[in-house]
Amino acid sequence: MPSSTQSLRHLVRLTDLSQEEIEGILETSVKIRQEGTTTALSGRTLGLLFFRGSLRTRASFEAAVGQLGGHPIDLNATSDFWDLEDREGGVMDGAAPEHVRDAATVLSRYVDLLAIRPSLSGTSWGTDRKDSMIQSWAAHAEVPVINMESALWHPLQALADLMTLREHFGALSGRKLTIVWTHSPTAASPSVVNSLLQATVRSGMQVRLAHPAGYELDSQVLEETNELATKSGGSYEVSNELPEAVDGAEVVYARSWWSTEDYENPTLAASRRARHTDWMVDPALLKRGDHAHLMHAMPVRRNLEVTDEVLDGPESLVYQQAENRLHSQKALLMHILRGAS
Amino acid sequence: MPSSTQSLRHLVRLTDLSQEEIEGILETSVKIRQEGTTTALSGRTLGLLFFRGSLRTRASFEAAVGQLGGHPIDLNATSDFWDLEDREGGVMDGAAPEHVRDAATVLSRYVDLLAIRPSLSGTSWGTDRKDSMIQSWAAHAEVPVINMESALWHPLQALADLMTLREHFGALSGRKLTIVWTHSPTAASPSVVNSLLQATVRSGMQVRLAHPAGYELDSQVLEETNELATKSGGSYEVSNELPEAVDGAEVVYARSWWSTEDYENPTLAASRRARHTDWMVDPALLKRGDHAHLMHAMPVRRNLEVTDEVLDGPESLVYQQAENRLHSQKALLMHILRGAS
Amino acid sequence: MPSSTQSLRHLVRLTDLSQEEIEGILETSVKIRQEGTTTALSGRTLGLLFFRGSLRTRASFEAAVGQLGGHPIDLNATSDFWDLEDREGGVMDGAAPEHVRDAATVLSRYVDLLAIRPSLSGTSWGTDRKDSMIQSWAAHAEVPVINMESALWHPLQALADLMTLREHFGALSGRKLTIVWTHSPTAASPSVVNSLLQATVRSGMQVRLAHPAGYELDSQVLEETNELATKSGGSYEVSNELPEAVDGAEVVYARSWWSTEDYENPTLAASRRARHTDWMVDPALLKRGDHAHLMHAMPVRRNLEVTDEVLDGPESLVYQQAENRLHSQKALLMHILRGAS
Repeated sequence: MPSSTQSLRHLVRLTDLSQEEIEGILETSVKIRQEGTTTALSGRTLGLLFFRGSLRTRASFEAAVGQLGGHPIDLNATSDFWDLEDREGGVMDGAAPEHVRDAATVLSRYVDLLAIRPSLSGTSWGTDRKDSMIQSWAAHAEVPVINMESALWHPLQALADLMTLREHFGALSGRKLTIVWTHSPTAASPSVVNSLLQATVRSGMQVRLAHPAGYELDSQVLEETNELATKSGGSYEVSNELPEAVDGAEVVYARSWWSTEDYENPTLAASRRARHTDWMVDPALLKRGDHAHLMHAMPVRRNLEVTDEVLDGPESLVYQQAENRLHSQKALLMHILRGAS
Repeated sequence: MPSSTQSLRHLVRLTDLSQEEIEGILETSVKIRQEGTTTALSGRTLGLLFFRGSLRTRASFEAAVGQLGGHPIDLNATSDFWDLEDREGGVMDGAAPEHVRDAATVLSRYVDLLAIRPSLSGTSWGTDRKDSMIQSWAAHAEVPVINMESALWHPLQALADLMTLREHFGALSGRKLTIVWTHSPTAASPSVVNSLLQATVRSGMQVRLAHPAGYELDSQVLEETNELATKSGGSYEVSNELPEAVDGAEVVYARSWWSTEDYENPTLAASRRARHTDWMVDPALLKRGDHAHLMHAMPVRRNLEVTDEVLDGPESLVYQQAENRLHSQKALLMHILRGAS
Repeated sequence: MPSSTQSLRHLVRLTDLSQEEIEGILETSVKIRQEGTTTALSGRTLGLLFFRGSLRTRASFEAAVGQLGGHPIDLNATSDFWDLEDREGGVMDGAAPEHVRDAATVLSRYVDLLAIRPSLSGTSWGTDRKDSMIQSWAAHAEVPVINMESALWHPLQALADLMTLREHFGALSGRKLTIVWTHSPTAASPSVVNSLLQATVRSGMQVRLAHPAGYELDSQVLEETNELATKSGGSYEVSNELPEAVDGAEVVYARSWWSTEDYENPTLAASRRARHTDWMVDPALLKRGDHAHLMHAMPVRRNLEVTDEVLDGPESLVYQQAENRLHSQKALLMHILRGAS
């Protein structure tokens, strides 16, 4: 139900929002945490499209919509829809029976917002890093599109992470965060780390990115982060040394992500990973920090990425982080749909 | 929650409604389009059962229920239920652990209406054309049953099509429509065309049905259409000639459907299709009409069934058609559940 | 949204509720049957997690939540989540990428109650009978957990069965029930019969459990039932003789369950079953009872477990039973969430 007076705002990545907007959303997040349920989305229908499975995102997003009085429609690739074409102008004689242009336009007539978790091909990082599917939805939809994690970005997680850091520290400028790559047999996309890195540097934090050689982040993401640092006074540096990278950190953020160098080759990827089983957060590592707290976006492999002692100890912020997905998504939805009729 | 005072109305095919009822529903459709959300279904629970996947129907139906204040329950064959038996009186020692009689009776105690998209065997048109599954649900349910597309009928699409034609033309009597078969590697059921043909002839339109030899519609459907034509003053004729069949048409409705002659044989079906790749709607074809507009029920294979230029041009009604699924389904639900307690 | 003032109540098995609580819930069930919809759960979000498919439970539970004004979130193993680990303290380097501890804690922050249908390994009854998955959810969740059928228990079905018996008999003490094992190629878990046996004996009924040798119930379940009988004045006895076991019964409850002796061996299980195709409820068997009524939890294989004549005859309570799932679940939810904030 698009409106001509609506200023259409998509959220493909967190930098689609100004820093002022983010500040406002974070303030609302804390307020809405107290209130719980409201009728801010009364009469609104929101479409959630999952091309890949999800537990936290699905549950927290649907709960957020419901608790704001809105109606979420959950559409799932395993049961409700099909391959969609995102190339423009071609003859559609392949597997995909429908174009994103048409799916996006039609669904825009039924709902007030579309939240999309696109799938990855898994066969070419060069292709997947283009995020062409989420870009295609944003290009064609007549209602706001929210990215629920693409190959490159996970803005909803970064927003919850910022909220958690703000609750813990207050002002973030100058605070020290170390992002630690961890070993896992099921590494995830760098999306969480890409979004976190940019969000924290943009907030003026001093970020250290620690990972084994071969797990470098996307060079364009790093270049953009440099630009953000220049404007914000924040900084980041890369280290391949553990435990040294944690020295002085006030927050350790653990995350396993795949090497884009052997994205297409699971055998090589497993060999590379196997050399770094010591990249794990345990109490000894955490103590190298400055009364450091632990963050993790989950799912977390216990005693492989992070030990039970750390995860269940007083320094762990992981459940608060997960809970903040709910509150910050509510505030985001209120911001994006405000003014939309 | 059946009521003894309820007059039980099923919608297996559009002719289950009188022409007067359809007029009333179409009037409400236009009104509800303005209003958007109401509380007409407040406190009502509606069960949606998908034995086959769906995007437009699933999203538009669930949005319609939610925007009327009702609660839709989406049940899906991939996760929520199992094969159901529809033969009466047999010993159930096969794959199906439950009979439609029992599933329909039980679900009728939980919900106020059941909307069903049955699956097709895909192995015998003689069997599938009987629509025995949707008929079995209608026979056993204690609440109204709506057909969300069976082998033979798609009344919800036809209703949205009528609404779109009415918005465009006003009175339909005497208006000229050509239904054009199009080439597609994933042909669909003739259900959309069967329902459209009968709905438009019954509205007094002059319909031309254009398809290659071998793609004839069901003979019983055509016989019934003759009877409808006699009463309504409408007409239909069949043509195997393109582009001539479009001459003078005010609306071109493109649709790919399978040949029932090689329903059981995908290889033969592909061979037959391959002879007709020139059955596509492009600007030159559309210009043979009388300022003709394009309609298509989607999903549409771009530049194979219809070119981008036509689909995205000013003569295209395809998005309005898709949007009207939402409005006309709201009006239909209000009509069917009116008086039901 | 856990509350510190909330007294956390799980329902893994029906004996988690006192007999007084059950009486109260059954009284509310009858009242709510008249009222239909209320706003008792307004503003509440309830999470439904299905690790196995379901029709009746899924539909009746979601309808119950919706008709009480709450918002159900349906999460499904086929699309929304993944294997979860339930062993404590181990190194999570296997297939499961997340621990129940973390999933349960996180979801507790989004919803007010978690209803779980765990899956079975199907490879070891010794393992599956421990019900470790549902126990793990109950141990870690910060909100009430309801068991929607585990290997050992199906408290929601037993509650609906008690409601149905109460509607039929009034006071249950001394009433005669025979539970009859029936032949089916797709035998189910003994969960329904375990819960029913304990619930009816605890209500003072005289229960006869009739099954072929080799289909004995879990010895611990039977021992516990003995203790319940001592306190309640109810009784149970086991018989391997049909039709004699039905003599004098006022209710015949038909159910097929697997032999735990060949749980791991489908071939042996089929051979064992094949010797007992005569274990079926037909009019002649029912007439051995004392004006006996039929109950069955469904799905039921017609003319294999029970004949059409009995299922569709005046003595059948099966649809009332299924309908009572809705009403008794509403009353249960109101009881469990009363006082929870």
